[in-house]
Amino acid sequence: MVVINCDMGEAYGLYKMGDDKALMPHIDVANVACGFHASDFNHMRKTVQLAKQFGVKVGAHPSLPDLQGFGRREMKIDREELTNCLLYQIGALKAFLDAEGLPLNHIKPHGALYGMAARSENIAEAVADAADVYKVPLLGMKGTLHQMVYERRGHTFVAEYYADLDYNADGSLIITREHEAKDPADAASRCTRAVNEGKTRSVAGNDVLVGADSICIHSDTPNAVAIAHAVREAVRPYLTAR
Amino acid sequence: MVVINCDMGEAYGLYKMGDDKALMPHIDVANVACGFHASDFNHMRKTVQLAKQFGVKVGAHPSLPDLQGFGRREMKIDREELTNCLLYQIGALKAFLDAEGLPLNHIKPHGALYGMAARSENIAEAVADAADVYKVPLLGMKGTLHQMVYERRGHTFVAEYYADLDYNADGSLIITREHEAKDPADAASRCTRAVNEGKTRSVAGNDVLVGADSICIHSDTPNAVAIAHAVREAVRPYLTAR
Amino acid sequence: MVVINCDMGEAYGLYKMGDDKALMPHIDVANVACGFHASDFNHMRKTVQLAKQFGVKVGAHPSLPDLQGFGRREMKIDREELTNCLLYQIGALKAFLDAEGLPLNHIKPHGALYGMAARSENIAEAVADAADVYKVPLLGMKGTLHQMVYERRGHTFVAEYYADLDYNADGSLIITREHEAKDPADAASRCTRAVNEGKTRSVAGNDVLVGADSICIHSDTPNAVAIAHAVREAVRPYLTAR
Amino acid sequence: MVVINCDMGEAYGLYKMGDDKALMPHIDVANVACGFHASDFNHMRKTVQLAKQFGVKVGAHPSLPDLQGFGRREMKIDREELTNCLLYQIGALKAFLDAEGLPLNHIKPHGALYGMAARSENIAEAVADAADVYKVPLLGMKGTLHQMVYERRGHTFVAEYYADLDYNADGSLIITREHEAKDPADAASRCTRAVNEGKTRSVAGNDVLVGADSICIHSDTPNAVAIAHAVREAVRPYLTAR
Repeated sequence: MVVINCDMGEAYGLYKMGDDKALMPHIDVANVACGFHASDFNHMRKTVQLAKQFGVKVGAHPSLPDLQGFGRREMKIDREELTNCLLYQIGALKAFLDAEGLPLNHIKPHGALYGMAARSENIAEAVADAADVYKVPLLGMKGTLHQMVYERRGHTFVAEYYADLDYNADGSLIITREHEAKDPADAASRCTRAVNEGKTRSVAGNDVLVGADSICIHSDTPNAVAIAHAVREAVRPYLTAR
Repeated sequence: MVVINCDMGEAYGLYKMGDDKALMPHIDVANVACGFHASDFNHMRKTVQLAKQFGVKVGAHPSLPDLQGFGRREMKIDREELTNCLLYQIGALKAFLDAEGLPLNHIKPHGALYGMAARSENIAEAVADAADVYKVPLLGMKGTLHQMVYERRGHTFVAEYYADLDYNADGSLIITREHEAKDPADAASRCTRAVNEGKTRSVAGNDVLVGADSICIHSDTPNAVAIAHAVREAVRPYLTAR
Repeated sequence: MVVINCDMGEAYGLYKMGDDKALMPHIDVANVACGFHASDFNHMRKTVQLAKQFGVKVGAHPSLPDLQGFGRREMKIDREELTNCLLYQIGALKAFLDAEGLPLNHIKPHGALYGMAARSENIAEAVADAADVYKVPLLGMKGTLHQMVYERRGHTFVAEYYADLDYNADGSLIITREHEAKDPADAASRCTRAVNEGKTRSVAGNDVLVGADSICIHSDTPNAVAIAHAVREAVRPYLTAR
Repeated sequence: MVVINCDMGEAYGLYKMGDDKALMPHIDVANVACGFHASDFNHMRKTVQLAKQFGVKVGAHPSLPDLQGFGRREMKIDREELTNCLLYQIGALKAFLDAEGLPLNHIKPHGALYGMAARSENIAEAVADAADVYKVPLLGMKGTLHQMVYERRGHTFVAEYYADLDYNADGSLIITREHEAKDPADAASRCTRAVNEGKTRSVAGNDVLVGADSICIHSDTPNAVAIAHAVREAVRPYLTAR
């Protein structure tokens, strides 16, 4: 069984990013930006309201403090400081969930932080420290260090497969500052294979093992809506009922 | 009966502001900065932990978004946007309260926003909108528009008397970008009079009516600790038991 | 004689705003955002390079410090502080002009600050204080207080007519947080009339006097390129040679 | 011959940092913060005016964009982006120098960026790219990669000895987020030795080679004024006339 999640709510002030309204019908779970890599208090409110209207569950998508770099730039940060950084953002999002009567569904670190958590024990521990306060599942990459840390700490781990990113030969993700459009049909068939076989083809041509409890689509991928539509149709037989 | 509150937790990064640790023994209630006029996620965590250690109650002290101006500079903001701005900050503080097992005690708008709420119905309504989510008391100036709005909206109103600020002839506060030291004995006797008689002497020499459910001291007033000590001694007979 | 100027270079990080490349062939002068309401060091560099490539002159478009509000939100600021705020931004832009071997062509306050300068002597004086350092022309609205102040201070004043904004019955501009698309043909004929007759029709239906040394188009107006194209064709006989 | 330089102008808004006024009589050269790790447009103006009053030369002290971390936290940044980041800050400072009629004396990267430039060719090249626009000397650590890059690029290199920091056994600096007080007499004798012998004792007990064209003191070291006074007295025979 699988669900579809989406990194979204990434507008800022007058700046737009992604067509969240068009994406909502195709997803189950929204990872909502918390103001550190994208979004602000107005867009967070609107995004939570939009998710509520479509029956989409809302999780926090906290980031390193880096609006200008969209959180896709690594920086040194120690465990305690990172925990505090995450709590601030998750708490801020929770205010809008409280205002709309929704629960916090999960936590998913954003961008560079996501990759750092997959490689660095200290970073993964900091994420787990923050999650201790909320007792909600954590999203991540199967078979990486953050899965090990989160599960050892007693947190539910949800393995993500990325519909719109490429995979390296070693199974790691290729993360760029700006995302490229992907062929929707190809993305859909890759997702179906990931769900069925737990495998995906890397850019080097080899197959790598992947988890696919949840399929992720980025709202800032240029043709995100088309990808979401195609992927949803393809994996419909395996979707957990909303 | 009266309590003593203090605007605190206003350090930022390597920058210090106020001697919070020395103030804690003299106060009952802390208004903790939420990162928009002062503080950051690290200092918020530390301030909440410090308050917990001293048995001091913690409320949110949200501000206009203006770190460089310390939230003491007015700006135009509409009701909905301000409500969102406040919720973001209160939620962020609540994360640290949740982490430490403390409840949110109250909300007190900071600086320029406090003055704007006392004069503008739209601003006071926005504060009340945010308070609706948390059902906690709101601090303010007795006899001003925000008292009327907060009470009409069903919120508990706590009237503040300022130990370290001067009052205009019309009863309004004189708020400067930087606070000046005040004579502790004088501050203490003014507080006692405010509690006993509900009056204070304005800078023009006339008496103005004041409420004094709670006495406020600013941690960034240069001799805040001496003032807090003197005021606490003076009003000790009227203090609500901690 | 007239030139066409454009507020541009307003992208930020991954966020886009306006199609600057498509606008460049239709304009003579670029007012480049300096990082306080929009843009960042990367986009400033790119915008200056783009202007150089098209032979477009570059001026500074400094703002109140308000990225989230796109500088379209008024705030209280005193004269000395505003002068410093402007110098910081103009100097930052000048670094990129120095790097590309271009001179600073002019200064034009952005958004809310532009309106404040047109009404408040202190604000207009602060703009003139900053311009004293660079001895370049200042753009503004004819017949307003900032024209009087700038000219009394010895600065060259360039009167702007707005191709994509509406005018109030008293001749003042209607400035909204987000701009609307305008009919290009209508904008073009309004511009021709402004250049020829020094008049424009207000939203109330009366004619108001306007200056039109330079016609302004906002890059964030949805159909800015179409407007720029139409206006340039219409006023071509009056254009100062580039 | 030697001069004394100081990292200063690091206040922000209402936040204070270092006693710049008391330091000015003891130094020859000020490295002025440019708003990215510390300072803002108001403090930059004041610092430049203060330096002018004391006949102290002013250089730019640009940083990674990290006010909350005081620029002492490494982050990934590519060459072109860093060059732009530096130009923005240097240009901003230059506006205040232009306003006061002072020349830009030099450029010195701040904090984490300084260390990165000493180790990474790409980072050092970015600093040199920015310096190309201004043709002023660059400060750094003798024998490190940035010296090699700066000199190969044709820039004048000024070797710094740090009066208030410790050295590792390999000659690298020990940089902490907050500086500790140092014994002024000890600092003075270490500086004299560095100037005379080009050596200093590391924390491991071995002697390491150092350059000392310029001695650096940090204004945020708790007893910076006492150190500056003692060092100036000690190296007076070697000082270049102001």
